[in-house]
Amino acid sequence: MPPATHPTAAPAADLPAGPVAVIGAGTIGAAWAAFFALAGLPVRVADPAPGAAARLDAMLERARPAMQALGTLSAAPTAPVLAHGIGDAVCGAAFIQEALPEDLALKQRAYRDIEAAAPTDALLMSSSSGLMPSALQHGLRHPQRLLVAHPCNPAYLMPLVELVGGAQTAPAALDRAEAFYRALGKQTVRLRREATGHLVNRLQAALWREAVHLVAEGYATVADVDRAVTDGLGARWTVCGPHAIFHLSGGPQGMAGFLDRLGPAVEHWWADLGQPTLDAATRALLVAQMQQAAAGRSPDQLARERDAWMLRVLGLRRGDPAD
Amino acid sequence: MPPATHPTAAPAADLPAGPVAVIGAGTIGAAWAAFFALAGLPVRVADPAPGAAARLDAMLERARPAMQALGTLSAAPTAPVLAHGIGDAVCGAAFIQEALPEDLALKQRAYRDIEAAAPTDALLMSSSSGLMPSALQHGLRHPQRLLVAHPCNPAYLMPLVELVGGAQTAPAALDRAEAFYRALGKQTVRLRREATGHLVNRLQAALWREAVHLVAEGYATVADVDRAVTDGLGARWTVCGPHAIFHLSGGPQGMAGFLDRLGPAVEHWWADLGQPTLDAATRALLVAQMQQAAAGRSPDQLARERDAWMLRVLGLRRGDPAD
Repeated sequence: MPPATHPTAAPAADLPAGPVAVIGAGTIGAAWAAFFALAGLPVRVADPAPGAAARLDAMLERARPAMQALGTLSAAPTAPVLAHGIGDAVCGAAFIQEALPEDLALKQRAYRDIEAAAPTDALLMSSSSGLMPSALQHGLRHPQRLLVAHPCNPAYLMPLVELVGGAQTAPAALDRAEAFYRALGKQTVRLRREATGHLVNRLQAALWREAVHLVAEGYATVADVDRAVTDGLGARWTVCGPHAIFHLSGGPQGMAGFLDRLGPAVEHWWADLGQPTLDAATRALLVAQMQQAAAGRSPDQLARERDAWMLRVLGLRRGDPAD
Repeated sequence: MPPATHPTAAPAADLPAGPVAVIGAGTIGAAWAAFFALAGLPVRVADPAPGAAARLDAMLERARPAMQALGTLSAAPTAPVLAHGIGDAVCGAAFIQEALPEDLALKQRAYRDIEAAAPTDALLMSSSSGLMPSALQHGLRHPQRLLVAHPCNPAYLMPLVELVGGAQTAPAALDRAEAFYRALGKQTVRLRREATGHLVNRLQAALWREAVHLVAEGYATVADVDRAVTDGLGARWTVCGPHAIFHLSGGPQGMAGFLDRLGPAVEHWWADLGQPTLDAATRALLVAQMQQAAAGRSPDQLARERDAWMLRVLGLRRGDPAD
């Protein structure tokens, strides 16, 4: 629903104090590093893989015009510095953004290395898209300062960060993380309980499950299901979430009116939704039809077109809806 | 995904020939009547309820600035005429858009009245959001010209129309309906098989089911789940559908790369999705939290804010993504 106060993408006047360390310079980590640096924070990055420096440079080049367009580019941007390992990256850091592959044991090993060198009050923020913070913080000496801070892709562009505490996370750590991201112009949502996939990936997976069902059972093609979303649902979902949409279709009584009138129909649809599996035949169908829908354009070319469109949509959000 | 050819909301130079009848002037029917009239077609409306004329006037006033902004307003708009019953409305009509309440028996009775007075080659297009065309056409004398043409709300604003044929629908009827809506600047998708809820409502119901689960189980509030959509998923879904999003996150191999790398994680999330019911406790929770999220704004006020935002988002789609 339209926010009661209009969101602003502009960073606050007071930048969060202290340098940032980014652990891992894959797609997510490099996007975070570019975002923090272009927002004006000193950034040190740990990634032993060859090509990390080139990936950071490429991401910085891609993020700069996007952040300029969104108004989140600092007047005094920095550039990420590639550190000599985790210990070197986190030494003296106030905020540590971990963006390693989704492997619990790998991440837990990295957190032990991080704790050995980082200040005891540094915030540990995992970008994990699916793992639970309770599992990540298991065995740490100061587990109360670890949380999940999951961005939407790409992190330099998309406003949302999901914040999730584990069993041992201190509320003050979540408060501090919230203030940190908001000072940088991000929108945050805080989960009250941890869930695998948090909110965004669960909601996305739920919609895609039905999309796959519709394709696998021959109701529509990949291209047509995608158009049902881009031409039918996407525009409304930039301003109203799924609950608000139904609230607004319920007449003067809002959600209560909707549930009275259409609740039974929705439950009927729920009962009819599919439960597909990604078996070999379904995978082949999805790949073939996606290929056809792409009409010869490469994923990289499509991604650039997507980012250009999204920038324009996100740019709208900075304005007043009553304009 | 960004369309290979850019969509245009402007109506084609050649308007579809022939007058339109709209059966039912509730929210959906009045929006259709306003859309057809402001696009320049002669429109006759059947609705016995008191207040139909006032509803048509109010909708016309609301639709005019929206269609002007989108470029779909005709240089020679008409105004819907309230007819004396169904027979009077459909006499001489080439296109008949039915928008009666979701009651199969009620609609079937109306179709018998329509067939008694309409030209035998008039297209019968039902706005039903959930009923199957095979059920609607049952017992008609000329069932081959009936199909479902389901709009997104509001029909004067949203580009998408879902076209669904039943067991007896002639392919030529679907072709003719497609040409009709496209000439008026709409985007159409055609289902290959009929499904309860078509595409849009099934996909929306799938996402909302998980949204309700997250609220009912206390993972997040209505407001926060909605923000996960508006701030996280909505912007990308205006340009890339659910398949294209994953195609673009799969590296150079696209969808195949995504399925190899993340297919198992998605199936893991699928298995964990909720199956809530709209019982009394859940309904009370949704109503109370929605009330809180609305922060004192009425559904009508929120709907106006939504339409203003959506107009701006849809306006973007008329431009070139490479701008």
